[in-house]
Amino acid sequence: MAYIPSRDLEPRVLAGDTRAIARLLSRAETGAAEAREALDAMFSHAGRAHVVGVPGVPGSGKSTLVARLAAAVRRGGRSVGIIAVDPSSPYSGGAILGDRVRMGELGGDPGVYVRSMATRGALGGLARGTLEAVDILDAAGFAMVIVETVGVGQDEVDVARAAHTTVVVSPPGLGDDIQAIKAGILEVADVHVVSKCDRPDANRLIADLKNILALGAETTFSGSMVAAVGNASGKVVSDPTFAWRPPVIATSAIRDQGVAEVLDAIDRHRAMLEQSREIDARRALIAERRLLSAGEGILRDQFERNREGKVAALVEQLKARALSPHMAATRLLREIAVGGGT
Amino acid sequence: MAYIPSRDLEPRVLAGDTRAIARLLSRAETGAAEAREALDAMFSHAGRAHVVGVPGVPGSGKSTLVARLAAAVRRGGRSVGIIAVDPSSPYSGGAILGDRVRMGELGGDPGVYVRSMATRGALGGLARGTLEAVDILDAAGFAMVIVETVGVGQDEVDVARAAHTTVVVSPPGLGDDIQAIKAGILEVADVHVVSKCDRPDANRLIADLKNILALGAETTFSGSMVAAVGNASGKVVSDPTFAWRPPVIATSAIRDQGVAEVLDAIDRHRAMLEQSREIDARRALIAERRLLSAGEGILRDQFERNREGKVAALVEQLKARALSPHMAATRLLREIAVGGGT
Repeated sequence: MAYIPSRDLEPRVLAGDTRAIARLLSRAETGAAEAREALDAMFSHAGRAHVVGVPGVPGSGKSTLVARLAAAVRRGGRSVGIIAVDPSSPYSGGAILGDRVRMGELGGDPGVYVRSMATRGALGGLARGTLEAVDILDAAGFAMVIVETVGVGQDEVDVARAAHTTVVVSPPGLGDDIQAIKAGILEVADVHVVSKCDRPDANRLIADLKNILALGAETTFSGSMVAAVGNASGKVVSDPTFAWRPPVIATSAIRDQGVAEVLDAIDRHRAMLEQSREIDARRALIAERRLLSAGEGILRDQFERNREGKVAALVEQLKARALSPHMAATRLLREIAVGGGT
Repeated sequence: MAYIPSRDLEPRVLAGDTRAIARLLSRAETGAAEAREALDAMFSHAGRAHVVGVPGVPGSGKSTLVARLAAAVRRGGRSVGIIAVDPSSPYSGGAILGDRVRMGELGGDPGVYVRSMATRGALGGLARGTLEAVDILDAAGFAMVIVETVGVGQDEVDVARAAHTTVVVSPPGLGDDIQAIKAGILEVADVHVVSKCDRPDANRLIADLKNILALGAETTFSGSMVAAVGNASGKVVSDPTFAWRPPVIATSAIRDQGVAEVLDAIDRHRAMLEQSREIDARRALIAERRLLSAGEGILRDQFERNREGKVAALVEQLKARALSPHMAATRLLREIAVGGGT
């Protein structure tokens, strides 16, 4: 296949051309400089989709939930795009998880688009590439875009926070230690899903989550995730009339239970955001995160690009302890900005 | 207690004054601007300690291992500093894990210093604060500095990679799904420890790890972590005569087994680094990571500082989709650099 410049892909993506979408997604994934303008254009065309983040630890059953959720969205007549993010590793080439979303039931339906993305290499970049992928599916006209992430670590939390509605999937029986890993992700939930509720230990987890939520509401949370994040970051002010309380929904893939309730909660959440001024606070929060992600992306790109030059010279100074990391980084940032941050 | 300016803490820290160390560590943890010069000075005085990274999932038994390792280091006559990093969450205030390192056996020994650090808030910053804490203990004269991290996510991988020797602790019985979370951390191991080897399922994990290592040696790894990281990032060239193969060591806290072997492996690894030119490649790698961490730290600090001003104006442009995140971030970087990146 001949190489098609990204600017020529632009109108095709906007028209919903699946092949063009696939190509531009690949370029967002690898952070191709050639695609910069087209990706910026995607952002300008995006903004209509309902973006739903679904973080959960591996084995939580989130892929199954996402597949069933997508089928339910389709039955309601809306189109849906799915971005599934895998942990990457030089060891595994991202393949260690093996069992990617099994989307058999949705195959051949043009109203569904599924894309599995690797996280980028040693220098990170998950957040930026994933969020640009969301822009592409949004601009291509998908009514809902679901982003499924592994949900551990700062990058995943950032991605989850960049959604209008975040659905956190927790399976029973992982033990307190593993649940603790997820602590950073629990408070960004607009909807809690407890998966595998055919298992007897699911009830304890449901009770635990409800307790945590009750606790949160009494202290900093006041029922609103944006209020909580706003408190944590100190700036984003939420609408005090926004009275969303994250529901805890029991699901079971075996019993085919709970999916309609999850979709209903997602839609109700969006409607409540729109009815209050909360949607504005949420959009500001998302914009802040994207600005920071993009800044970190530029920094990493420039770092890679100047590795043999400026970076190598500064590294020598660090090795000799003639400059501190802070002093060296200040110089690097100045040179990047003067040299043009593209 | 009266506030002591950081520059006055400097000579006291270098003399090993425990109270001064504690104060400066707190300022590194919070990223206090006032401490900038003192922290830069710490970096210039550091460089003698053997820095050992110990990542592992919660419940892996890494805290127990670190405590016993520290006791073994002390019996050998060396001093040892420990930095233990907790996941932080606006929900828990970092306290959700509850059971911090139990260092009872080491209490009252001036040759040991233990510090538990919270990870910083919503905008990250784990890597920078932790690495500056290592500088402080290094400059204060501790012969070995052990950094214990939860070991999931990019930040933790960065911290693990900024050590001379990385000891990855894996417990048996977590299941393939949870092991997969750790994929990103496994390949940075110089020494693998399988904990809780009194359990019958430990043998399978030991065999699995040995298989993975054999596989890695045949493909990209050639037995060297730096070679692997170098391949992944494309630049750092390792010494081809460096023939370290990560050992897999079985430990059991109940049976008091394996700690001496782990310490021996750590010391042998350091000796082999020093004997080959590999130490130089490793130092370059660490310097690169620190430069990038510091750059990201400056970006985040400036972001916080200008939240009401420049950042808010750019966020409005993003919300209106008049600027893409990339375009807005390019402007922000330019203004940060021109405004002075301190």
